[in-house]
Amino acid sequence: MSDVFEKVMELAKRRGFVWPTSECYGAVAGFIDYGPLGAMMKRRVENIWREYYVIREGYYEIECPTIAQEAVFIASGHVAGFADKMCQCPHCREYLRADHVAEGGGIKNASTMPDEELATALAGCACLACGEVLGPVEVFQFNLMFRTSIGPGSQRTGYLRPETAQGMFVDFTRLLRFYRDKLPFGAVQIGKAYRNEISPRQGMIRLREFTQAEAEIFVHPAEKNRHPRFSRYADYKMPLLTYIRQQKCEEAVTLSMREAVDKGVIANEYLAYYVALTHEMLVTIGIKPERLRFRQHLPDERAHYATDCWDAEVLSDRFGWVETVGLADRTDYDLNAHAKESGTPMTAYIQYDEPRKVPRRRIIPNMSVLGKQYRMKAKAIFAELAAATPTKDGAEVEVDGEKIHIPADLFEVRDEIVDVRGEDIVPHVVEPSYGIDRMCYAILEQAYDEDEADGETRTVMRFSPKVAPVQVAVFPLMTRDGLDEIADGITRTLHKKGILAEYDDSGAIGRRYRRQDEIGTPFAVTVDYDTKENNTVTLRDRDSMKQVRIAIDRLPDTISALVDGSITFAELK
Amino acid sequence: MSDVFEKVMELAKRRGFVWPTSECYGAVAGFIDYGPLGAMMKRRVENIWREYYVIREGYYEIECPTIAQEAVFIASGHVAGFADKMCQCPHCREYLRADHVAEGGGIKNASTMPDEELATALAGCACLACGEVLGPVEVFQFNLMFRTSIGPGSQRTGYLRPETAQGMFVDFTRLLRFYRDKLPFGAVQIGKAYRNEISPRQGMIRLREFTQAEAEIFVHPAEKNRHPRFSRYADYKMPLLTYIRQQKCEEAVTLSMREAVDKGVIANEYLAYYVALTHEMLVTIGIKPERLRFRQHLPDERAHYATDCWDAEVLSDRFGWVETVGLADRTDYDLNAHAKESGTPMTAYIQYDEPRKVPRRRIIPNMSVLGKQYRMKAKAIFAELAAATPTKDGAEVEVDGEKIHIPADLFEVRDEIVDVRGEDIVPHVVEPSYGIDRMCYAILEQAYDEDEADGETRTVMRFSPKVAPVQVAVFPLMTRDGLDEIADGITRTLHKKGILAEYDDSGAIGRRYRRQDEIGTPFAVTVDYDTKENNTVTLRDRDSMKQVRIAIDRLPDTISALVDGSITFAELK
Repeated sequence: MSDVFEKVMELAKRRGFVWPTSECYGAVAGFIDYGPLGAMMKRRVENIWREYYVIREGYYEIECPTIAQEAVFIASGHVAGFADKMCQCPHCREYLRADHVAEGGGIKNASTMPDEELATALAGCACLACGEVLGPVEVFQFNLMFRTSIGPGSQRTGYLRPETAQGMFVDFTRLLRFYRDKLPFGAVQIGKAYRNEISPRQGMIRLREFTQAEAEIFVHPAEKNRHPRFSRYADYKMPLLTYIRQQKCEEAVTLSMREAVDKGVIANEYLAYYVALTHEMLVTIGIKPERLRFRQHLPDERAHYATDCWDAEVLSDRFGWVETVGLADRTDYDLNAHAKESGTPMTAYIQYDEPRKVPRRRIIPNMSVLGKQYRMKAKAIFAELAAATPTKDGAEVEVDGEKIHIPADLFEVRDEIVDVRGEDIVPHVVEPSYGIDRMCYAILEQAYDEDEADGETRTVMRFSPKVAPVQVAVFPLMTRDGLDEIADGITRTLHKKGILAEYDDSGAIGRRYRRQDEIGTPFAVTVDYDTKENNTVTLRDRDSMKQVRIAIDRLPDTISALVDGSITFAELK
Repeated sequence: MSDVFEKVMELAKRRGFVWPTSECYGAVAGFIDYGPLGAMMKRRVENIWREYYVIREGYYEIECPTIAQEAVFIASGHVAGFADKMCQCPHCREYLRADHVAEGGGIKNASTMPDEELATALAGCACLACGEVLGPVEVFQFNLMFRTSIGPGSQRTGYLRPETAQGMFVDFTRLLRFYRDKLPFGAVQIGKAYRNEISPRQGMIRLREFTQAEAEIFVHPAEKNRHPRFSRYADYKMPLLTYIRQQKCEEAVTLSMREAVDKGVIANEYLAYYVALTHEMLVTIGIKPERLRFRQHLPDERAHYATDCWDAEVLSDRFGWVETVGLADRTDYDLNAHAKESGTPMTAYIQYDEPRKVPRRRIIPNMSVLGKQYRMKAKAIFAELAAATPTKDGAEVEVDGEKIHIPADLFEVRDEIVDVRGEDIVPHVVEPSYGIDRMCYAILEQAYDEDEADGETRTVMRFSPKVAPVQVAVFPLMTRDGLDEIADGITRTLHKKGILAEYDDSGAIGRRYRRQDEIGTPFAVTVDYDTKENNTVTLRDRDSMKQVRIAIDRLPDTISALVDGSITFAELK
């Protein structure tokens, strides 16, 4: 298997997993269609994600539009800073990602180099499209958001969201109220996000339109080390490639989440909890642990808003280690940014367990004298005085641009101890962010296998039954003597139980098995002449190719149990 | 209940069904956020749709990008023709839909009037925004597609899809191969679609970004009256508002689908089947039959590609009859359009049951003579001769613009009978197209109710248990003596069974019931002191407010059965 990528993409196209989009007009790079089997698999992956985040964690899903107004992305920083460095080949006129061209030419640290220095370095590099040496070029910034206009007359600029996250930040006050003003809470979103890549050349790995599943978990900053369900993963062990070990070119260290937090390897319990949950989920959908690593961002790689950031990377035959999930402690960066830009406070009121005694200085004006002396301005002066810092000579206030000195005998300064019952805090956000398309690609690539069956090479997709698009195939041995009707009846019974069964009666039985092996159907039922005698069928396991006989009425429960993993095929008898 | 709209939208906002989008920056008309409960309800509606189309009908779902290249929409006709008539108020500068302004001014048939005539009529109408009489205005076409650029340098124009349908037409040849070249087959898609409305003012009814669920069913044109599962709905009766009855201002006529097809009221079995399926589905999600009608398009209202078209309309208190589902026989219009624009044939090869004997005339040139006589041109002449229509004098052919007469003795005309085994046909498309957001709005509006409980007015959302976001609430009577732990355990057991249960221990039990009634939770479990004695809890029905006692271990199955409708609360004892 010299190139799994070619083989798996050929199979994916031919059998209806993934297709080039609008192929008859010439496919557009960076976009794909999920065909019937691919869309089904993708939906299963999304539903497994929901089982973890919505059902188990209890974080409700919301759904925001994919188009948002400009203000949202001014606040988030995307309008100013969400850009890649670009250059244009003077020979073939192709636009290129400058850092990729430089890396192709063996230049290090291209992504952090100033534009002019990068331009100089590029002159000796070859164009990634036509292969000519570039010569003198300019480097400029290309914003990666798709831009459009909302309504007629270019009234309002809109952008296709580059991540689903911003919708949840912008809805913070609504969400807080929904969760009855209590922290921690989470909101999640599964949906399309868009990045107008300059020149995408990596199939499902670098898409211009892709699906994200993001959770934004809002936590009291002082509680980040107290995840209420931390015990679930405290003893979960996994290899961690810390930034220090990367700098020293050392191997990953295997730690439990408890140890990782205690040693300061992962910033806090919240982050460690979702790192472990992510590991567990990726293994569940069929990623091999030996092809999975968790890598901490290096200090200069980390986003400006994050205090700690880990990527789940999956090893691809074609693309090397691919970032598939990002887990970040985004702190209070986003809520502060939106509060500032919108003028809406984004805080949660936290009541103390016990009221706290706090000293406070109060300035109480002598209202009757002030009123007489300043008349129309007295009201404004009252207000200003409350916030003034008086000296023994009196206080300075400013009303309508005019500075007024208020003598000390016109007010009283009172130092008090007051009961404070709580405070407004800006929650921190812990964000696990999943690239659904990359997860699907990893599943496809890792499931691909070839072995031997009946003396021939067999292509088999070894999907976990949890993500296999078709869960069971149903074959009549012959399309006569009523075998086909029995098989059809079984198919319909399985459908009613929510099991995706595919009926197939065309061609020799061996060919039918091969067809299902190739799309990764984990189980196959065959109705034969014995079925008419004793109401049993054969149930075949895709991987071992072993068969057992089983009563028809046990089929639905047995297949459900095999799919959800509560029993294994080997346990059947 | 003078205005249900105001009340239901207030509740929807406050309780987390639907929110104005990016509200802190000033919401943008035509966009909404689904909050936690709304998104959950929407997902349940989508999954019910999938039960009908994916599981029962067996039509696989695919997923195409929301952005597509311009060629797709040139072929579909959207670039040239997907526009509304617009004018601008000279007083407040607001852009307005010209036909809406005219209708507001009592002018009939505004939507079919030529632009100049409409402009004249508009002069006397009031602006819908500022109320001033417009005076002289211009009417122009505004294309409703959101436009963007793919890649840098405005290399390629892209549009956000105005319907999900085109993706399935463009993928036709891939889909045909997936279904092993056999008709009929269907492909479905649930996803975002976009229309850049000029001035949307109707909340969830007229969105610029909305969710469609569309099925494209590809059928042999001669088989449209032979739906393989027609018997399922042949006797399904429902009122049909035919176009003839509309023209005569008559009431709808109630017919079975068999009668509707036989009398020519509905064009064919396929269309009738999905009309009935849609009626059943809408009633299932909670639309009252008396607020639902199926209206046939009038001949001048029908799209140019459709031979017959029916709308499922739902009666809204605020908006009148709202088109919620459209069912059309789109014929071969779309496949022909894409075949022409792309140059890719979009046909299916249909093998005849028996080979057919077909007469064919063959022209066989006398090659040796022709070769000698015409030399270099002989090859081209051979090719042209095959398609020529010879007379007894010979045949005229054209080679490189030169007309050449070929005498009759240089070829032989042979009339043969040949076996033809099949033919290439362009399938017809039957399309049911659902507006998911409008279905959600209809559910919200129709579920809203007020009655009396404990001597107070109770607001209750009477959702069908199938679409209610929270399926069961679990309350401990007190948060002590272990009642809260038992309730928490029940909640977690229900979660494991895939039931969305919400635990609530805050406030008096009556208030907790009210909170759940308001979000339409159909059932509530209360753990009380008897629970500790005998392991039973009370189970309360939202609508009747009656309670029964039930054993804890029967809860999961009982609630599942109540939710899927296999038993009713009245049947419990």
